[in-house]
Amino acid sequence: MTLSQYLPILSWGRTYTRTALSNDLMAALIVTIMLIPQSLAYALLAGLPAEAGLYASIVPILLYTVFGTSRALAVGPVAVVSLMTAAALSNIVEQGTMGYAIAALSLAGLSGVMLLAMGLFRLGFIANFLSHPVIAGFITASGIIIAASQLKHILGINAHGHNLLDLVISLVSHLFEINWITALIGVLATGFLFWVRKGLKPLLTRLGLGAGLTGALVKTGPVFVVVATTLAVWGFDLAEQGVKIVGDVPQSLPPLTLPSLSPELLGQLLVPAFLISIIGFVESISVAQTLAAKKRQRIDPDQELIGLGAANIGASLTGGFPVTGGFSRSVVNFDAGAETPAAGAFTAIGLAIAALALTPLIYFLPKATLAATIIVAVLSLVDFSILKRSWGYSKTDFAAVLATILITLATGVEAGVSAGVGLSILLHLYKSSKPHIAEVGQVPGTEHYRNILRHDVITDAHVLTLRVDESLYFANARFLEDKIQARVAGDKAIRHVILQCSAINEIDLSALESLEAINERLREMDVQLHLSEVKGPVMDRLKRAHFLSEMTGKVFLSQFEAASSLKVKAPN
Amino acid sequence: MTLSQYLPILSWGRTYTRTALSNDLMAALIVTIMLIPQSLAYALLAGLPAEAGLYASIVPILLYTVFGTSRALAVGPVAVVSLMTAAALSNIVEQGTMGYAIAALSLAGLSGVMLLAMGLFRLGFIANFLSHPVIAGFITASGIIIAASQLKHILGINAHGHNLLDLVISLVSHLFEINWITALIGVLATGFLFWVRKGLKPLLTRLGLGAGLTGALVKTGPVFVVVATTLAVWGFDLAEQGVKIVGDVPQSLPPLTLPSLSPELLGQLLVPAFLISIIGFVESISVAQTLAAKKRQRIDPDQELIGLGAANIGASLTGGFPVTGGFSRSVVNFDAGAETPAAGAFTAIGLAIAALALTPLIYFLPKATLAATIIVAVLSLVDFSILKRSWGYSKTDFAAVLATILITLATGVEAGVSAGVGLSILLHLYKSSKPHIAEVGQVPGTEHYRNILRHDVITDAHVLTLRVDESLYFANARFLEDKIQARVAGDKAIRHVILQCSAINEIDLSALESLEAINERLREMDVQLHLSEVKGPVMDRLKRAHFLSEMTGKVFLSQFEAASSLKVKAPN
Repeated sequence: MTLSQYLPILSWGRTYTRTALSNDLMAALIVTIMLIPQSLAYALLAGLPAEAGLYASIVPILLYTVFGTSRALAVGPVAVVSLMTAAALSNIVEQGTMGYAIAALSLAGLSGVMLLAMGLFRLGFIANFLSHPVIAGFITASGIIIAASQLKHILGINAHGHNLLDLVISLVSHLFEINWITALIGVLATGFLFWVRKGLKPLLTRLGLGAGLTGALVKTGPVFVVVATTLAVWGFDLAEQGVKIVGDVPQSLPPLTLPSLSPELLGQLLVPAFLISIIGFVESISVAQTLAAKKRQRIDPDQELIGLGAANIGASLTGGFPVTGGFSRSVVNFDAGAETPAAGAFTAIGLAIAALALTPLIYFLPKATLAATIIVAVLSLVDFSILKRSWGYSKTDFAAVLATILITLATGVEAGVSAGVGLSILLHLYKSSKPHIAEVGQVPGTEHYRNILRHDVITDAHVLTLRVDESLYFANARFLEDKIQARVAGDKAIRHVILQCSAINEIDLSALESLEAINERLREMDVQLHLSEVKGPVMDRLKRAHFLSEMTGKVFLSQFEAASSLKVKAPN
Repeated sequence: MTLSQYLPILSWGRTYTRTALSNDLMAALIVTIMLIPQSLAYALLAGLPAEAGLYASIVPILLYTVFGTSRALAVGPVAVVSLMTAAALSNIVEQGTMGYAIAALSLAGLSGVMLLAMGLFRLGFIANFLSHPVIAGFITASGIIIAASQLKHILGINAHGHNLLDLVISLVSHLFEINWITALIGVLATGFLFWVRKGLKPLLTRLGLGAGLTGALVKTGPVFVVVATTLAVWGFDLAEQGVKIVGDVPQSLPPLTLPSLSPELLGQLLVPAFLISIIGFVESISVAQTLAAKKRQRIDPDQELIGLGAANIGASLTGGFPVTGGFSRSVVNFDAGAETPAAGAFTAIGLAIAALALTPLIYFLPKATLAATIIVAVLSLVDFSILKRSWGYSKTDFAAVLATILITLATGVEAGVSAGVGLSILLHLYKSSKPHIAEVGQVPGTEHYRNILRHDVITDAHVLTLRVDESLYFANARFLEDKIQARVAGDKAIRHVILQCSAINEIDLSALESLEAINERLREMDVQLHLSEVKGPVMDRLKRAHFLSEMTGKVFLSQFEAASSLKVKAPN
């Protein structure tokens, strides 16, 4: 059954029913209508011609249908990955050139190969180092940067930059170039789309429309704006007035393309491709798992990597750019009743028809309209509540979020996410390098031992019991040495030290050598070292390393047993 | 009492006795005799004129006496730090030039400032990231490189390189230049010193000499070789035959010097100075703690950083180079009966007298003799048993040792130690990102719950209990999500999931959000999530974050209580 493990389509395809077919077709229709403006807009955000957005949604979806494990995930261009694409490519080639589009193919291809490799070698755990607070901070900051980057289209001016600072400076210095007609279209479109989100839905509900119809009408908002503004530009000849339009879009199926394989270019794209892969994977897998849980289905993270890898390689060979599973489109797909990945295949067919037949109709579509749909979509990603939440929960998490947001805004997406990950790891190491070590005593009348600082407990002047609340490894081993030496050297009455090991899940070689040093130094001070409540696997290792035979004291099954047994011996 | 915390001399100085004085004087005499050849040799190893070794042992010792907390630590040039100094400086300035000596001052100064800052800001924990296996591998590889680097002096040829590969290639290609008289002196001196270590000691013991006298005689070995070979070179006029000698050494107290403060130079020295500081600190603190334990004394790691920082700053202002607490000299100092840091001060006076009066006597001292003392000293550092030990104990520790040894030998000390530290951290993160999660069941007739794979236990088809043997944080949170989803989606009978939290010492914000996602997804599958045996501090945080009120299930004090309570409810 390994083949069907790598080709999930073999499992669900075998039991495909007529009901599933009709449900999938319906979902595909709704998603296609939603995806047309979205695909065009994200191509614009990535700095590419509008058609690249359509191409990036056709073959990648088909490939994910074959290799992916999620039944509802809709793959294609998404906001954050498109922004990261633009940020990565603009450093290397000039936007609007042929080289830029080819570099986008290389970026998608490289990212696809990385995802595929991570899937085949089961390296998906790498993505886990992106902590939730870092992702939340990163998405919020990216949303702000994306919105700011679209203001130039709304106002009809030139501006550039891939961080908030550069963008604001650039926008302000070009403000005098403002095209008032473009600005009017942009502001009206943005305002209308916000109203659709915030005002139309409650209105329709109050008018007594069903939730299904309301949802469908709200989703047509972008399509309505696209049609209305395109007609306005065409009818009033606004392109002549300087309103920037999408213009000629080839009427074609996705072309066969070859990414550049120049080693120099690939070298420059290595880090961005890696970050795009990881961010894309994390976004995709969380959507996939959330939707799968609703139907008690299973997602295989390693197979998801393979599915996304195939999709990106497909994008690089058919005129696209980096893609991943998108949140909003997947939710729409799911809500519209998609039952299998076949819904994705039908969406791809729908988009292919659009690419072939509908592209002449969007000649007059103003870029400001696309910018408005992007702004409204990404501002829903901006959520500063993570700052408050992390502040209340843990200061180290707060520090990681704040650093991620500030560095992303100030210097851009790549530095921001790297700094966030780096800082999370450093803070984690720092915390675990100073583990909580409690001196414990017996709760009167029980066999329980608790922190002497928090509880009223019985202690024994000759016996020091320490409970270490962390696995022992190199980063905290010497901390324990210091603690014990400081405590014992300062109290001449101590004859026995018991380490209560109930929370120690592992002891690495450094920590073993620290224990040996502790044992040896305590011996020099005429103090015995004992252990209590050692876990099975830890015990096995200590035995194998012959530490237990070197140890001056004994290993006790329970802390109570240890304390009772040593109390009797105290007189010696 | 904060002043005496920063100036430990105020504590021990106040109670200084006549007995302590005479013991300290005796120890100082022995250490001085041992240090004269050693200091000269390590200066040679660092690529500096011989006198720099004496200077580096005078003022730094005095400063450590004032600021250090160890009563027996002897500070000065040591082998590994001298090698790291040579490796760092040779990349920047040519050896033998004035600029080289000045750069050595800058390196000592920079390292001193770093140590001081780490002490004042209590950052000593940084050194903990050097795991024991990495240190062991690094010291072994360094010993080999040092020994190889001294072969050129033994053979009287030119050779250079700071890793084993370069050194061997360079030695072989210069082999035709060999000076046979130098080689004779070098080989005889090396052989004699090895014999003193391995053969003389047992011999003297067999002859019935006491351990103290034997030890003292063995320690005079290097001095004997120095005197003998110097006389030979002088008597037979061997310098004329091409035997390289130490030559003119100024008769002077340590000079006042100023390190170069050129930002470019300091920038280049930043990383080496950091590595030297950390390696030096780790070597020093382990010696200090081992010796302190023997007398039930306390070492304050942060104050040690201040003491070593002051010593290095002193070295940089008085013609020295980076110093730290040395293992062999400290042990000799301790064994000779040093009671307080005053012994160090007396040693400094002894060395100052040597620098003033004895330097003309070493004019004819052959460099081959110094090289022989270095080789014999460092080969005792080479110990491959760590490979076997780590292989038997843990494969990840083995990987870290092996990588450190190979990379140090192949590319040099800086890359070697950095790679070792990096790899240890990565392996640690990797391990903790895939924590041990056991499915547990009840041991019949008890209240204990054990791994169903290892024990014959009672399970309940409707209740799944998982015990996570690791704190939950961002790197492993998603792993838990995957595990639970995979397990529950595959078994429709499950109605309750209990997480037994006895080994969870912390739950960070990422893990909290994973728990929320798990709770939410289980709810979608009509499964309740419960927790059991949650620790106090973890419970406090979960309460603060309102997770407990969102959770579909309950928190139970014990696993037994959880299982019993859910069993009753099973019929629903």
